[in-house]
Amino acid sequence: MTDPLVLHTRTGGRVDLVLNRADKFNALSEEMLATLRGEFQAIANDTSVRVVVLSGSGRAFCAGHDLAQMAGKRRLDYYRQLFGDCARVMEAIVALPVPVIARIHGVATAAGCQLVGACDLAIAADSARFAVSGINVGLFCSTPAVALSRNVSAKRAFEMLVTGQFINAATALDWGLINQSVPVEELDTAIDTLVHAISAKSPDAIRRGKALFHAQREVPRAQAYAMAAEVMAQNMMDENTAEGIEAFLEKRTPVWK
Amino acid sequence: MTDPLVLHTRTGGRVDLVLNRADKFNALSEEMLATLRGEFQAIANDTSVRVVVLSGSGRAFCAGHDLAQMAGKRRLDYYRQLFGDCARVMEAIVALPVPVIARIHGVATAAGCQLVGACDLAIAADSARFAVSGINVGLFCSTPAVALSRNVSAKRAFEMLVTGQFINAATALDWGLINQSVPVEELDTAIDTLVHAISAKSPDAIRRGKALFHAQREVPRAQAYAMAAEVMAQNMMDENTAEGIEAFLEKRTPVWK
Amino acid sequence: MTDPLVLHTRTGGRVDLVLNRADKFNALSEEMLATLRGEFQAIANDTSVRVVVLSGSGRAFCAGHDLAQMAGKRRLDYYRQLFGDCARVMEAIVALPVPVIARIHGVATAAGCQLVGACDLAIAADSARFAVSGINVGLFCSTPAVALSRNVSAKRAFEMLVTGQFINAATALDWGLINQSVPVEELDTAIDTLVHAISAKSPDAIRRGKALFHAQREVPRAQAYAMAAEVMAQNMMDENTAEGIEAFLEKRTPVWK
Repeated sequence: MTDPLVLHTRTGGRVDLVLNRADKFNALSEEMLATLRGEFQAIANDTSVRVVVLSGSGRAFCAGHDLAQMAGKRRLDYYRQLFGDCARVMEAIVALPVPVIARIHGVATAAGCQLVGACDLAIAADSARFAVSGINVGLFCSTPAVALSRNVSAKRAFEMLVTGQFINAATALDWGLINQSVPVEELDTAIDTLVHAISAKSPDAIRRGKALFHAQREVPRAQAYAMAAEVMAQNMMDENTAEGIEAFLEKRTPVWK
Repeated sequence: MTDPLVLHTRTGGRVDLVLNRADKFNALSEEMLATLRGEFQAIANDTSVRVVVLSGSGRAFCAGHDLAQMAGKRRLDYYRQLFGDCARVMEAIVALPVPVIARIHGVATAAGCQLVGACDLAIAADSARFAVSGINVGLFCSTPAVALSRNVSAKRAFEMLVTGQFINAATALDWGLINQSVPVEELDTAIDTLVHAISAKSPDAIRRGKALFHAQREVPRAQAYAMAAEVMAQNMMDENTAEGIEAFLEKRTPVWK
Repeated sequence: MTDPLVLHTRTGGRVDLVLNRADKFNALSEEMLATLRGEFQAIANDTSVRVVVLSGSGRAFCAGHDLAQMAGKRRLDYYRQLFGDCARVMEAIVALPVPVIARIHGVATAAGCQLVGACDLAIAADSARFAVSGINVGLFCSTPAVALSRNVSAKRAFEMLVTGQFINAATALDWGLINQSVPVEELDTAIDTLVHAISAKSPDAIRRGKALFHAQREVPRAQAYAMAAEVMAQNMMDENTAEGIEAFLEKRTPVWK
């Protein structure tokens, strides 16, 4: 029997996914990518899930691709499949109907830093560090650049990509790559607080909202408004929204279905 | 006789629009949206206007939609119309040929925060607070998300949208949602200074520039440069620009027509 | 004999281009734009170049267009050509296969500020200042707006464009327009350090990466991932990447071809 590559814990509407390959700094091997994708598919089909927390075991959050595994396979088709699979995992996070929070306690490099970018929210220990360091081995972090440059302004992203240098959590916070930086001993409390804030909301509104948020970023502003107005109109027809507004007008706490 | 929903004051080329529904925290009822749209249409047709200042009466800047009015109408078509009308007001601000400055002295929530995002410029009292808090009543702030995510980076916008939590003026400044945060007693002076800076420029250049600025954001970079080069060439043919360059070369103050 | 408009120095894989019209604050005359474009074309065709540093002679980095030259020519076609040529110089920087670093020791205004925006990386003296000041002479900085608004958030860019006011290096750093602000006496050391960091990487990876970085910004996220996955797969087939990964696994320094 072997340990699972991803630990899966369910607590109420919260799912914790823990990358569980500590001896390899949770590197995203083929098998790890396939396992993660399976986990996300299962969550996507389970309407009782409210929020996902993604973290890593051992010292690192995630060190990116598994270079040892990649080194042997010098076939273009293999690499196309691998980087395509990696991108599909990142897109699965965006497509997931519930928010995904990255819990970054250690180093996040290359595709590990991309995971941080792909998640909806991110809280890091103030000792965590971030880099897109593929350039150090001659492999520009191209797919991480997609996620990074959608979180961080152009010159900052480009500098990280061509130098491979680390930024600390304070800089990641200042640049908008993460939402919070806290002492490591407060990391779980900060995650819990954010999980509770989201779990206290109407599930319909969060699901509609996450999908709309990402969709509207990809289109011109006029089209974004058209999408958003339709989503809001549909959202108003939800029973939970009627309850939410009634509770607000009656100055009481809403009870969601 | 009832008070107008929007107070309209004209001082030279400056128009002050004041949301005038203090007892409802200047909520954007159907009537308020229609009135605002009418005001913007009138301004769009008046070439003597140079700049617009949008503010609120009473304690709040604007608390967003009028939930009491919305609660009773459980028809999808009604909500489509309402959110479409709201988006059209926001787009009217962007389409206005002159800069619109938000003067935020109090709370700006939901579509009130969207107004801040839609304005070209924003100055807030350091006591002002901002939230997209529809999520608290089960209504994700979808149309506000369009404006917010075009001002503030992705993770910050998403956190505000799913938690509904307030940010203060210092954070709004740090994140780029506003241009300045000042003590409330200096708010009018700060607004006046910005109004004067804009009013001292060539009206042709400001009009051409505002339209170009927003248009070029919506297209790929190469197309943006093509648009911008054409606008600059046209701008060079304006009499005011000839005067401006002549004045610069002669080291004197230009006199605009 | 006249001094060249752009000084060109080659040191190993580094090319220094110095705008050399100090008495005109390095204004971008027709001739200066044509010379710059020629320099970039030559660099694009020379695979031994690794990085370009763009700087200015005299007191200013670059004061933008040459207003004295422009003033006399009141023909729309002339201006279309001029602003088109200017945009083509900016696009040549983006299209160049190697990173371009702006070294800003003094004032960067109008199209001079656009140059900063167009460069991949920028390091400034802490005494440097930045403005898009065409508005002061009745000429809205439309083409600079394209570069500026792709580096700096909307309200900040718009304020600079309609007021023409300067920001200092600390603000430019905070807003993401530059990568570093250092005391002027440390400017060359900071540039050297960045040049060395880039030059130490695999040339293939830097070239593939720069092209991908800019291309993926112009398209929706899903398309960006498809582009990026293909570039990474191709990058894995480079001999230098095989060497880089082998060196990493063997814990030695890679030797690039």
